[in-house]
Amino acid sequence: MNPTACILVIGNEILSGRTQDVNVQYIARRLTELGITLAEVRVIPDQRAVIVGTVCDVRARFDHIFTTGGIGPTHDDITAPCIAEAFGVPWSVHPDSFRLLEAHFPPGEFNAARQRMATLPEGATPIANPVSVAPGFSIGNVHVMAGVPRIMQAMFEELAPTLRHGTPVTSRSWYALGLYEGALAEGLADIQDRHPSVDIGSYPFRRPDGRRGVALVSKGLDAAAVCHAADRVRELIERLGFTPAEGEPP
Amino acid sequence: MNPTACILVIGNEILSGRTQDVNVQYIARRLTELGITLAEVRVIPDQRAVIVGTVCDVRARFDHIFTTGGIGPTHDDITAPCIAEAFGVPWSVHPDSFRLLEAHFPPGEFNAARQRMATLPEGATPIANPVSVAPGFSIGNVHVMAGVPRIMQAMFEELAPTLRHGTPVTSRSWYALGLYEGALAEGLADIQDRHPSVDIGSYPFRRPDGRRGVALVSKGLDAAAVCHAADRVRELIERLGFTPAEGEPP
Repeated sequence: MNPTACILVIGNEILSGRTQDVNVQYIARRLTELGITLAEVRVIPDQRAVIVGTVCDVRARFDHIFTTGGIGPTHDDITAPCIAEAFGVPWSVHPDSFRLLEAHFPPGEFNAARQRMATLPEGATPIANPVSVAPGFSIGNVHVMAGVPRIMQAMFEELAPTLRHGTPVTSRSWYALGLYEGALAEGLADIQDRHPSVDIGSYPFRRPDGRRGVALVSKGLDAAAVCHAADRVRELIERLGFTPAEGEPP
Repeated sequence: MNPTACILVIGNEILSGRTQDVNVQYIARRLTELGITLAEVRVIPDQRAVIVGTVCDVRARFDHIFTTGGIGPTHDDITAPCIAEAFGVPWSVHPDSFRLLEAHFPPGEFNAARQRMATLPEGATPIANPVSVAPGFSIGNVHVMAGVPRIMQAMFEELAPTLRHGTPVTSRSWYALGLYEGALAEGLADIQDRHPSVDIGSYPFRRPDGRRGVALVSKGLDAAAVCHAADRVRELIERLGFTPAEGEPP
């Protein structure tokens, strides 16, 4: 069994619709490559009780928890103290991170607000931030990252080599223009029944030029079974009188 | 108190990173306009036990549940029977929806797979689909919509007039180029302390031309308090020697 993961997106700005999240897709793709199964994503508000309660809940149920958002210097950045509370440890200055940040700011500008960014749950390991210095951190199975996509991505890549990986998922896709889901559903269900170790997904699409079609994705840990199922999918498309194309629709 | 909402995004394609979700932001913005507080979003896989368990959990905790995805004709579209199971009712043909779909397809093409799209939990009310006919549905406080954004949006707009609304949130934003969060954090925390009914959020940004800054959003149900807090934010930006601009950064 591959390790499992849950992403917690912490941020009122996602829940109000102000901001389009793009971190989930980045992390999801990378976890798929690393053979870690993303089992759930939750978006929750910047509220102490909700963050603490959710972290306590999910960290017992998944192998890895990744959080994004709420680790900046302002009053609404409360993720770090909430994680400390969830783990029952003090939230205290991390000397190495303090020194790094102190050296980064011009004299007199490393104020109390910025010092909060060097304050971590006791026992946490910092995650280096090559973009803007202020670190993320890991404590237990919880990995705490920034919400700004460029910084989050840099932190994730610092973290990735340290994560327990699994077997990467094998995926093969075929698509066909002009084909509708309703026409192939029966044949596809039959292929799914014959390949229980493979997840076969059917995704209708509409290209910017208005042409429509369906993409059929076969995925699983057993590469041979995936290839076999994908071959049957290709044959099904041909049998219905359409032209299969490999990969994702352009 | 405004009514609360939770969105369940049902789809392996989001969890694998294949697809960038855009439905959450659409629904979130509309709920904000309608005075409904989006309290949580969960992304879960197309797995029967997870869908049923999650629906049972969240429908008791929020006033409205909106689901997206999994109501097409293929074998991986299992949302409707799972909702029926969560409500303990049969999943059975909805005669009006059956007739609508039957009339929509050419003779001989309304096959068993397409008939699934006219099969709803008993007691559900269809949500009209002006794009591609196959309906969504509401049962109790759970509103089940398509995953394809164009169809989801049309269904949401069919549904919106029937939802119990609340007081729309008042929001005022100021931003400043060249200003960093760490420089204003202390003054901002002071404004937040003096306006407990207002949520003040601080969001660093980086424009496509590389220029950076911070956006400061004051939000709440008490319009006068929001305006007052936003005025203090504007004054803070000026006091720090920067030029406040109203609205969201371009």
